Formats: sequence, structure tokens, C-alpha cells
Amino acid sequence: MALIVQKYGGTSVGTPERIEHVAEKVIKTKEAGNDVVVVVSAMSGETNRLIDLAKAIHPRPPARELDMLLSTGEQVTISLLTMALEKRGHAARCYTGAQVKILTDSAHSKARIQEIDAKVVSEDLKVGRIVVVAGFQGVDSTGAITTLGRGGSDTTAVALAAALKADECQIYTDVDGVYTTDPRVVSKARRLERITFEEMLEMASLGSKILQIRSVEFAGKYHVPLRVLSTFEEGPGTLITFEDENMEEPLISGIAFNRDEAKLTVLGAPDRPGIAGAILGPISEANIEVDMIVQNVSQSGATDFTFTVHRNEYERALDILQGSAKDMEAKEVYGDPKIVKLSLVGVGMRSHAGVASRMFKTLADEGINIQMISTSEIKISVVIDEKYLELGVRALHTAFGLDEDGTQLRDEGKDAG
Amino acid sequence: MALIVQKYGGTSVGTPERIEHVAEKVIKTKEAGNDVVVVVSAMSGETNRLIDLAKAIHPRPPARELDMLLSTGEQVTISLLTMALEKRGHAARCYTGAQVKILTDSAHSKARIQEIDAKVVSEDLKVGRIVVVAGFQGVDSTGAITTLGRGGSDTTAVALAAALKADECQIYTDVDGVYTTDPRVVSKARRLERITFEEMLEMASLGSKILQIRSVEFAGKYHVPLRVLSTFEEGPGTLITFEDENMEEPLISGIAFNRDEAKLTVLGAPDRPGIAGAILGPISEANIEVDMIVQNVSQSGATDFTFTVHRNEYERALDILQGSAKDMEAKEVYGDPKIVKLSLVGVGMRSHAGVASRMFKTLADEGINIQMISTSEIKISVVIDEKYLELGVRALHTAFGLDEDGTQLRDEGKDAG
Repeated sequence: MALIVQKYGGTSVGTPERIEHVAEKVIKTKEAGNDVVVVVSAMSGETNRLIDLAKAIHPRPPARELDMLLSTGEQVTISLLTMALEKRGHAARCYTGAQVKILTDSAHSKARIQEIDAKVVSEDLKVGRIVVVAGFQGVDSTGAITTLGRGGSDTTAVALAAALKADECQIYTDVDGVYTTDPRVVSKARRLERITFEEMLEMASLGSKILQIRSVEFAGKYHVPLRVLSTFEEGPGTLITFEDENMEEPLISGIAFNRDEAKLTVLGAPDRPGIAGAILGPISEANIEVDMIVQNVSQSGATDFTFTVHRNEYERALDILQGSAKDMEAKEVYGDPKIVKLSLVGVGMRSHAGVASRMFKTLADEGINIQMISTSEIKISVVIDEKYLELGVRALHTAFGLDEDGTQLRDEGKDAG
Repeated sequence: MALIVQKYGGTSVGTPERIEHVAEKVIKTKEAGNDVVVVVSAMSGETNRLIDLAKAIHPRPPARELDMLLSTGEQVTISLLTMALEKRGHAARCYTGAQVKILTDSAHSKARIQEIDAKVVSEDLKVGRIVVVAGFQGVDSTGAITTLGRGGSDTTAVALAAALKADECQIYTDVDGVYTTDPRVVSKARRLERITFEEMLEMASLGSKILQIRSVEFAGKYHVPLRVLSTFEEGPGTLITFEDENMEEPLISGIAFNRDEAKLTVLGAPDRPGIAGAILGPISEANIEVDMIVQNVSQSGATDFTFTVHRNEYERALDILQGSAKDMEAKEVYGDPKIVKLSLVGVGMRSHAGVASRMFKTLADEGINIQMISTSEIKISVVIDEKYLELGVRALHTAFGLDEDGTQLRDEGKDAG
């Protein structure tokens, strides 16, 4: 008998009918001989309804009271799901975050879980009950209700799975797994049977919005096997797992991309120590997050410095940069909001240097110019003109054998790089 | 500096605009130099919305989960009201029933308050904060959320006032006080400046739905001065107070009536011990509540037995009675659902016997036949044909000097009875 923690998001519990459907799925898992703990989000639309109510009263609702307000969303869902389970003759109990003692810090609206007691959950499981827990919420040491921020229900599920030493944490969503890339862009995109935590982290942070990044980190840290599945279709989903030395790793697991970036460049800044800080300092003081950073030093002793920010922050960042460029006597500042970032992700590339050159050659063959390059151990990212996004992703998807009907390339020293 | 507990019902907080209006009233009380604790209900319509959701899933929603669900209603209101107070620059904190430790028994949907800790409230008041508390809800000893039943927010307010030793508990509603009778029936009905707890209890139990009866009992038991006021109009409302020996008591404080009753009579039952039990036993076994009971013994050794039930239960009670009348060989059973109960209430009548005879004479003068009579220390009730309700109430209202322009009769031995 295994202990399974399941998480259903807002769309999965968006109507009474869908809640009944979730009850059926939960019971199926229970009747297969498992203990089941279910974590649910607010019904889709509910959180926005509550925020609208708050904004009708306060233009910038205080975080403490907003948490008190928003936490009612999941409380409604847990009650309804438990009723649906009981109607079907199954003993069930439901709990708010405070009741299962999901202890967080006091950072309202973005609290972090510090500890979970979960004794009450274990006791219910022991007597055969299904346990339903409100996602997204916790309680701080003073007893105030906190929330973990949007998508925090994933984190609740993983943290509960860790605390209960569950055998698997299943995240039900509206897609049936993690894909090699976005199927809306590449029709031949393929569902992955498994992906490593490191790869999933890179994919998540690069804009694959299936799982909240904190929940993946949490699962990796506490060694919780995580599975992404569809609420609406049957299927095994994608298992997010720990790297196995003996596992035959595909060279590349997936291609992620991000359309939300914009590029800013300072040309001909004096090449002296502290110049990067002088450029980025005012940006970070304005609370603008910087993603990629590339610096080249020219022969002439001047330096070209390029970085990317979220596209929403582009205008503001450009303003700031023009001010600071003047101070440091840089030659020129320019920007381009019409770029995209495109990344190959795979633990397989860790032991193989040929990936980068094959990537660059594939893009060059399509006439796509690379504007920036950045690499990590299991990822290579490039910035290209946004109009080449689809072309680039499709070409790489085929070149690295990710197509549904393609032969998957593995890190067996066979690739030409 | 006084400590005031204010309670605002669902209509008073039914929209964001109304919540802002309540915030203004609270701040006015605070700025007059008082400490203020506010108890609020769910926004009007919200409880029904939640019940509909539950019923979409479960035809008879289990009470434990229904309490979990319904308690979100007040949680929304406390958040919004606190935001409105903070927007106006006032420090405020809000708490659920569980957070202020309103400890109840575990009778879900109709829990009774056993104890209130309220330490957290006192500490907030000490540092000058306004405290907002969710009405209607509590927590049992296992940590499960309970509700006190409809109208329970009044009870929360009174219980908090008692626990905090508040100087006054103000119940804001959509009427501006307690009236001598229903102003929709008697246009000359007058708002009472004050009424005693005993009178209020009789008025409440007789169908004046201003205050929940349990909250009045609670206030009487713990000596909490209670005031009923309007959220929407300015005015002193009605103070519900303790009987003062020196107070000049009006003979009659008010006239209550109840249109929901139906009458059942067993004619010619054998007059032997246990006959009342034989008649009422099957009725109470069927969970039908009995209100008035009158029994007359005739010379012939047979007895006539009459009682009233809620009009909704009339058909069912008649069926049961016809069965049991046969068993006990009673002559006849008949019933009448078209009756009303009409009651004079006043602590003044305690020391005066003349009230009854004046009441009966007034009704006789209008040609109204009295079908049943029942009396308590501070109340006389009669059952009459429902078509005479308005006529009877108006005649008595004038006869006992309750009209707005009338001279109020006091218990000074002057009345003719």
C-alpha cells in the first residue's frame, strides 16, 4: 500500500461537476489500495472574484488582510470535495492550512513553509480516511493566516508529501505531462516519460508554466517523486525523478523558450573594474529583475555590455540606463524588445561538449542570427529575433531527435559535435 | 473611555459600499474616545450562494463540512472591513472565530459557545487597534470549525462583550429599534427607549425577529447591556436593560403576534391521568414542536384538549392526532390553521392583575372571540381568528396607551382593570 498525495488546480475543481469528477479520481486511487491525501486550489475564477472585492474597497489591499480573504477560496473547495467523497460513501476529512499546521514565515502573500506537523493527517490516514487539505495557505507563528503566492498549492502538495514521506506526489493539471517543447509551436512535440529535477527546474524557470518552480525545488530537496498528469485525460503523465547514474540519458530533454524578454545594450563603456555594477546597480535599485548578462571587452579598452529584462520593464530600464550611461561616459545605449530566448535543456549535455556547436550550426543553417549566448551545466540559451522563434524551435526539435517520429539522440558519443 | 462591541448583520455589509459605510460608523465610535470591537456577518446573499454550491454536490450536505464552507462567508467580510478601516488610516486587526478562540461544543450547525479566550483581542485594544471578529463561528476542542446557526453573529457579539466586560453591545440592524408592535400593522407603533431583558425575550420568542433569542438570553445571563440600532439611520435605538426596581415601568411594553400557528383540538377524551401525555406523546415523537396547551375538564368526566403547532406542521399533526384519538376513544378531533396568537408583554403586569380583564374587554368590544388563553408572569397570549389580527392589535395598542400620540399607561394603580 502506497501513500499518494494528489494536487488538483483551480481549473480541475472549477465547477461542482468537476469537483465530482475529481472525487471519482481520488476514489479510484484509494480503491486501488492506496492512502490518499488531496490538496486543492480555489475554484478557477474565485481568487479573481475575491481580489476584485478587495480592490473595490482598497486600491492596494494590505497583504495581511488579503491573505485572510484569499484563503477562503481553498476552504470552499476542500469542503465541497469532502462532501463529494462522503456522498460516495467514503470517510473523508478536510483541513485548512492552519489546521494541519503548515507553519510559514510571516511574509504575507509570499510566505515560505517552515514546518508541517501533519499529525492530524497521519491519524486520519491510519483509520482509513481520505484527507483533503487546502493548498496555497499556511499559518505563521502568531496564528495569522498566510498564503504562499499564486501556484502555491503545488508547494503545499510537495511539502505535505515530504512531511508524510509519501511514495509519490501527483500534480494534476490541464496538460497530460511535460513535453519536449510547447506543442502549440511544434506539432511533433513529444510527452516525456520522465525528466530529472534539474531539467524540470530549467524548463520551469524558462517559461514552461506547468509547475511552480518552488515546488520543484522543494521536491528535489526532500527527494519527493513528482508526477505531472492530466485531470481530464487518462495516462501516466511525466515522472520527475532523480538522476540515475545508470540511466541512459537523452542528450537533450526539451526545448524551452521565453517570449517575455527584452534586450538592452551599453556600447563603448570604459572597461574598468566596477563597470558592471555601475550599469546594473540602478536597474536593481528600481526592482527590475535581470535575466541574461553578457559582457565583451574590445581591444580598444572599451566594453560592450548587454543584458535582458522582462518585456514589461523594458521602457523603464531603458530610461534608467540612458541616465547612467551618460554618467559613465558610455558611447551609446540601445535596446530591442523584440527578442526571444530559446534554450536547450538536458542533463545529457553535462558530459558532452558537442551540443552547443550543433545548436549554433542548426540555427545558422536556417539563417537565424544569434544575438546572445549563455550556458549552464545542463542548459544552453540563445537570444534571437522573435520572428525566428517557431522556425528555430522546430529546427532544433528535429535536429536533436525530439520529434515524435524521430530517433531520440542519446549521449553515447555518437553525435557529430 | 468605554469599550463598545458592535455587530453588523448581512444587510449592513451586503456590498463594498455598505462595508465602507460601516467602517465610517465604527471610526466615529472610535474617535469619540471608545475602544471598539466589531462583529460582522457574511455579506447578504453569500450564505445562500455557498449553500447552493453545497447542494449542487450533496443533497444533504454533511454538517461538519457545511460549517467549514459557511464560515468562509464572515471571513470575507472581516477582511474587507479591516481593509476599509486601514484605508482610512486606522490600525485594525481581524480574526476568525477559531483565531479568537471562541470555543464551542461540537454540535455542527448549531454549536453553543462554551468559552472565549479573547486575549488577542485585549492586546490589540491595548495598543489602540480596532478589532474585527467573524460572527456566527467558533471552533471545537478538536480544532474543527463550527457555526452557531443562523443569526449566531448576535450571540458572538454578546459573548465577546461578556468576555471582554464591554460597557455596551450594540446590535446594528435594518430597523432603528424595538417597537411597541410591528409598524407595518399599526402605523402608530412607537420605538421603545428601553425594554427589559425579560420583555425582550418574550417579544423575541413571540415572533419579533430583531434579535436572536439566544443572544438575548446570553446578554441577560452575563449582564451585558444590549442596544438595538439602525445601520442606515442615526438614532439612539432601544436599550435592553435590567429591571430597575425604581424605574417607573410602563404597564405594557409591547404587543407581539405570530401568524405561523395552527390549532388542534381533541374533544371528549376520557378524563384520566396520563391523557395529556397520550395526546402529545406521538406529536413530540414526530419532532413537532407544541406551543400553547389548554385543557378543560367538563362536568361529564370527559376532557377537551387544545394545542397549537407551527402552521407548516399542521397537516402532519392532524394525521397523527386522528390516529391517537381513535386509540383513546375520544369523541372528535378538529383543527384550524387560520388562527393567530397575539400577546401583551410587560414587566409592569407582574404586579397588576387588571391587564387581562382589560385585554379581554377590549377584544370583546371589537367583537373578537378569544379561542385560547395562556399567561405567564409578564405576558398574556390569546389565540384569535387570523382575520381579526390587525383589528385586535390596533385596538389593544390604543387601549394600553402605546400609540405614538397616546398617553402611556404606567403601573400606578390608575388602570381600571
